[in-house]
Amino acid sequence: MKVACKIWLDHNGKVFGEGPYELLKRVEKTNSLHEAAHQMDMAYSKAWKLVQIMEKRLGFSLLDKKIGGLSGGGSQVTPKGKELMKRYEQFEKEARKAIEKAYQKHFGS
Amino acid sequence: MKVACKIWLDHNGKVFGEGPYELLKRVEKTNSLHEAAHQMDMAYSKAWKLVQIMEKRLGFSLLDKKIGGLSGGGSQVTPKGKELMKRYEQFEKEARKAIEKAYQKHFGS
Repeated sequence: MKVACKIWLDHNGKVFGEGPYELLKRVEKTNSLHEAAHQMDMAYSKAWKLVQIMEKRLGFSLLDKKIGGLSGGGSQVTPKGKELMKRYEQFEKEARKAIEKAYQKHFGS
Repeated sequence: MKVACKIWLDHNGKVFGEGPYELLKRVEKTNSLHEAAHQMDMAYSKAWKLVQIMEKRLGFSLLDKKIGGLSGGGSQVTPKGKELMKRYEQFEKEARKAIEKAYQKHFGS
């Protein structure tokens, strides 16, 4: 037996969690929401909508979008978006470690 | 903003979590899976199936069922079921506290 969990941030609804973190991480690497969504087997329209909803609930932009141009546009994670990712990453790691520790205490053999 | 989470125990699939805990807690109080399911707005058939699946995955019985009789039957949580509930209750409380602490550390104002 093992412990499993889903952790997310909430502000009038889900605002950030593992999925969005993964998506932004891939945008960071590829500079493209299209490519990030594709890598996660997610429709671009769904990824775009997800970002819109998160931005609205968070009250700040997660992505800077360049439309068209010679390079064909692209997306970059905003400084505030990067800050959120960094905090979430550390928080999530610590939280999972603490959950595992509590699990071992009560269910470990 | 706040943190939210779902925690469950897994063994070849979900074996125990908040919902099952709540269901067994109500069986403890009412000595009836029928009544417990009803209180949780859950179909009896669904509650019964849930218990069957959990028992199979856990490898022990959660409920002792008395069928029919003058009292109309009923269910009681087994000693092993009570033990699981107790452990889960303590584990879940500690895990949630630890998650909140990690959240405050990284997102607290």
